[in-house]
Amino acid sequence: MSSAEQFPGIAPPTIGVFDSGFGGLTVLRALLRRLPQAQFAFLGDTARLPYGSKSRRTIARYAVESVQFLIREQGAQFVVIACNTASALALDAIQAASPVPVLGVIEPGASAAQAASRTGDVLVIATDATVKSHAYAAACQARGLRALEKACPLLVPLVEEGWTDHPVTAEVIRIYLAELIADATAHGLHADTLVLGCTHYPLLRPLIERAVPTGMKVIDSADAAADAAVHLLAAHAPSISQPVRPDQPPLRFFATDSVDKFERLGSRFLDRSVGKVELVDLGG
Amino acid sequence: MSSAEQFPGIAPPTIGVFDSGFGGLTVLRALLRRLPQAQFAFLGDTARLPYGSKSRRTIARYAVESVQFLIREQGAQFVVIACNTASALALDAIQAASPVPVLGVIEPGASAAQAASRTGDVLVIATDATVKSHAYAAACQARGLRALEKACPLLVPLVEEGWTDHPVTAEVIRIYLAELIADATAHGLHADTLVLGCTHYPLLRPLIERAVPTGMKVIDSADAAADAAVHLLAAHAPSISQPVRPDQPPLRFFATDSVDKFERLGSRFLDRSVGKVELVDLGG
Repeated sequence: MSSAEQFPGIAPPTIGVFDSGFGGLTVLRALLRRLPQAQFAFLGDTARLPYGSKSRRTIARYAVESVQFLIREQGAQFVVIACNTASALALDAIQAASPVPVLGVIEPGASAAQAASRTGDVLVIATDATVKSHAYAAACQARGLRALEKACPLLVPLVEEGWTDHPVTAEVIRIYLAELIADATAHGLHADTLVLGCTHYPLLRPLIERAVPTGMKVIDSADAAADAAVHLLAAHAPSISQPVRPDQPPLRFFATDSVDKFERLGSRFLDRSVGKVELVDLGG
Repeated sequence: MSSAEQFPGIAPPTIGVFDSGFGGLTVLRALLRRLPQAQFAFLGDTARLPYGSKSRRTIARYAVESVQFLIREQGAQFVVIACNTASALALDAIQAASPVPVLGVIEPGASAAQAASRTGDVLVIATDATVKSHAYAAACQARGLRALEKACPLLVPLVEEGWTDHPVTAEVIRIYLAELIADATAHGLHADTLVLGCTHYPLLRPLIERAVPTGMKVIDSADAAADAAVHLLAAHAPSISQPVRPDQPPLRFFATDSVDKFERLGSRFLDRSVGKVELVDLGG
């Protein structure tokens, strides 16, 4: 289904994608596959990462400022919060402050797990901050699933080191999954589904697929969020009337700091060259 | 040599120790061994870490604010910057703004390497930010040494995961050192000394000692900084006249965020219980 079919009679929308860093480029990659004709503006709030160590109030303020930049200055008509921490701790605040629809990554991930699981028991791996928020467990519970979450703090640094197909990373994944599965068994769970609850983890999917027990399904929350975005966009299409701006490139990248690192590492996450990243100042 | 001998006729000083996080507790640990009678106030600017991804100007502002807290509110008469990034990028600015002597960790590390090396060729492992600053290379060069630096970004997360005596960590160290030594050989260096240029690395010293080639000396910049502090304090002792405050505990810990994580992980770095960490607000 092309975006011309999804948005009959109107131009494809401008979609804002926001992350605290650049891991959210995996969500943009999934969106690009589904909506190749849309215009995208991606903002990484790299000056203020990591959000994980900050309070809910601070995260909400940063995320609202970032989303307002995407809407007001980049004309985004739809926003995807491609950041698990901001989705977990600030989605309500962002939606309350936004005049356009805003989608997070956690609810779509939980819905995809619900669709995939037969036993109703799911496992979630994520960063320490996402696990501490228990946002995935709550979203799973709201769908009648039992979920056990585990923080895997070494996986993001391993991805950022570029060791996405490395024996050390395979061993770290084996250790984390063995601990999680033993813990699930001790809790009486019969888990058949594993949710990747961090935007960095899609780059480890091949290693993770090889490490899970036979028959366990792996849900990528980046893919799930992109699927949900396509559905929501189709529902909101009639209200999206601003024409595509042919003077603008279809993909624009913004960061609040560390533009070099973004340009250097971003292509691994996006699976294509990021090109030029524009520096923006959202204040302290 | 006890602090009574070091400070004849006067009370031992109050020493402020500053880090962007809590890795600098390894420097405090080294100081406590040498100055058991001094009073210490440690501040971790955990709300604003990591400094490594921020600009020199921002790091200088944060570090100056932190050091002023230690001097004005905690009565520090001597300050140790137990943070490689702040030492590399902001020591001049801190010293310019401070009415008391301030010591960083990089110059002492380079001096200890000079004393240890026979070939004059040294290796330095550190975080990405410290390596990018080339502060160790410059400090080594100023002492007539040739230095090759390597960023080892997985080592801090491995320490924070608690895998300080783990086969995965041993393998990561083996890989990093093999790459560094091959690079040094290609550059014609005959390195006989390895500087641990990150406050987290002393916790990996046993694994690193086992991984280096026979005869290579390992210099811990935390130990080197503590040695330098003792010498500098002795030289400044006549000007340090404020008596020890018996109403205050000898060790006080402050953090700008994440007090729980500090209390939980800090004891590993300090090698004794951290106890209560007080939250302070230094502004955004």
